[in-house]
Amino acid sequence: MRFIKMHGNGNDFILIEDFHKNLLKRGEEIAKRLCDRHYGIGGDGLILISGSEVADIKMDIFNADGSYASMCGNGIRCLAKNIYIEGICNRDRIKIETGDGIKEAILGLKSGEITDITINMGMHSFDPKQIPVLCTEEVINKSIKVNEKIYDITSLFMGVPHTVIFGNIEDFDILEGGHIEKLSLFPQGTNVNFCEILSRDRIKVKTWERGAGITLACGTGSCASVIAANKVGLVDNRVQVDLPGGVLFIEITSNGIMMTGPAEIVYKGEVNL
Amino acid sequence: MRFIKMHGNGNDFILIEDFHKNLLKRGEEIAKRLCDRHYGIGGDGLILISGSEVADIKMDIFNADGSYASMCGNGIRCLAKNIYIEGICNRDRIKIETGDGIKEAILGLKSGEITDITINMGMHSFDPKQIPVLCTEEVINKSIKVNEKIYDITSLFMGVPHTVIFGNIEDFDILEGGHIEKLSLFPQGTNVNFCEILSRDRIKVKTWERGAGITLACGTGSCASVIAANKVGLVDNRVQVDLPGGVLFIEITSNGIMMTGPAEIVYKGEVNL
Repeated sequence: MRFIKMHGNGNDFILIEDFHKNLLKRGEEIAKRLCDRHYGIGGDGLILISGSEVADIKMDIFNADGSYASMCGNGIRCLAKNIYIEGICNRDRIKIETGDGIKEAILGLKSGEITDITINMGMHSFDPKQIPVLCTEEVINKSIKVNEKIYDITSLFMGVPHTVIFGNIEDFDILEGGHIEKLSLFPQGTNVNFCEILSRDRIKVKTWERGAGITLACGTGSCASVIAANKVGLVDNRVQVDLPGGVLFIEITSNGIMMTGPAEIVYKGEVNL
Repeated sequence: MRFIKMHGNGNDFILIEDFHKNLLKRGEEIAKRLCDRHYGIGGDGLILISGSEVADIKMDIFNADGSYASMCGNGIRCLAKNIYIEGICNRDRIKIETGDGIKEAILGLKSGEITDITINMGMHSFDPKQIPVLCTEEVINKSIKVNEKIYDITSLFMGVPHTVIFGNIEDFDILEGGHIEKLSLFPQGTNVNFCEILSRDRIKVKTWERGAGITLACGTGSCASVIAANKVGLVDNRVQVDLPGGVLFIEITSNGIMMTGPAEIVYKGEVNL
C-alpha cells in the first residue's frame, strides 16, 4: 500500500488513498499500527482520503491511539496539498468533507508551487455552556489560583475547549497546563495556551493539549489565543503566531477564523497492510 | 534516495545504501534530520551500508542525535537481514565491518526465510578498570545506598559499562537507574539493568540506558544481565531474555557472547536528501 508522510509545523501524518473505502472500517487498528514510532511508520495521525458526495474529497483522521478525530487544522492542510500535487483536484479552492462538516482549503500558489494553505476554522464562542466552563458569565481575564500561583484566564470554544493565559512565555511552567486542564471548573477539561504579546500583529504561543501534553503547533490553540488577545484589545484582526513547531497566520473575519500555514512532504513509501 | 525502515525488538533504524560513500561525511547532519520523529522519517538511528575491504560489508551507525555509534546489536541484525534480502550478500554467515571491529552475523533460515539472526557480541569483563568502576575488587552483589534504598549491584563491561540488579521487576522504580548511572562510583556512567530470574533459562530485564533513559530492548544489557546472573549461579549458559520490546536469546560461549533475535522490515520509502 502506497503512503505519503507529511507534516504541518511538525504535526505529522500518514496519508493513504482509500477510494474503495477498504481501510476506513479498519481505521482504528491501522492507525495504531502505522502511527507507532518504533514498530510502525510513526505519526501523530493517519489520514484516509476518499471520494465525497458533498465535497471535492473526504478526509477521515484517526489519532495515533486509534480514536477518530473529527477535524485537525494541521492535517487538513497536508491533505489539501497532497490532493493538489497528486492531481486528484487541481483547483486552488478545495472543499473537504470532515467529521466536523465541510471545510474549504485555499491554496496559496506561486509559479505553480504551493506556498501555504488557508483553512476556515469556523466560528468561536465565549458562551460558558458551549465551552463548557462552570461559570455564569464569560471567563475573560478571570483570576484563579492553581498550586499557590495566580493565573488570569480567558476561556472560549474553538472546536474544542481552550483557555488562554497572557504573560511572558519564559516565566511560565507549561507543565502547569496539566493541572489547569483538570480543574473542576472545566467539566470536559481544557487545552491551555500560554501566550506572549510581541506586538499588535504578532504573538508567541505554547500549548498544553488536553490529554496530549505539550505539542509543537496547535492550530485551534493558535486561533483561540488570537481571538482571546483580540477580545481584550491586545492585538488586531490579523496576527502571526510563533509556535515551537513553526509559524501560523490567523485572521478573524465575519465568516470565521482563517488559519494559514505550511504543509510539507517528508517522503513517500510503501507498506504492507 | 531510497531507504528501508527496519526494527529489532522495537529499536528502529533507517537503512540507506551508500556504496559511493557520498553520505558518510554528512552522516551527522543526515541522521539528525532523518531520525527526527516529527519532521523526518523517525528512527533511533541511521545505518549507512557500504563496501568493505576487510569484510563482506561495512556498517556505519549514527544515533538520532547525530553522534557516531561504534556498534549496535539490534542495528546489526537489521543490516544483516537487509543485505541478504537485497541480494548484496547471499551467504548465511556475513562478516560486517563496524566501528568496534568485524562482527559475524549468522542467519537462521527456514525455507529461504530468515527466522532470526545471531551476532557474536564479543567478550565481557568484570575488571573494575575496564568497566570502569572505582573499586579495588570485582563488583559482585555489592550493596550500595541510593536515595535511602539499598541495591545489590553487579557491574561488568560488555562493550559499554553495565550494572545489573536482581529482584522482582515490578518492585523496581526503573527511573532510579538515572541516579545510579550518575554515581561517582562510575566515572563514565553505567547502564542499569533491573533483572528478574524466572528460571535457570529465562530472565526478564528492563534497562535504563546511559544518556537515553528507559528503552525497549537493550542488546548489550541483555548480555550483561545473563552474564551477571550466570556469574552468581542463578542461570545456565543459554538464557531467554524477556524485554519490553520483545525477546532475545543469549548464549555464553568460550568464543564470546552469542545474541540471537529478530529483525523486521517495516516499509520501504524514498526521500530527498
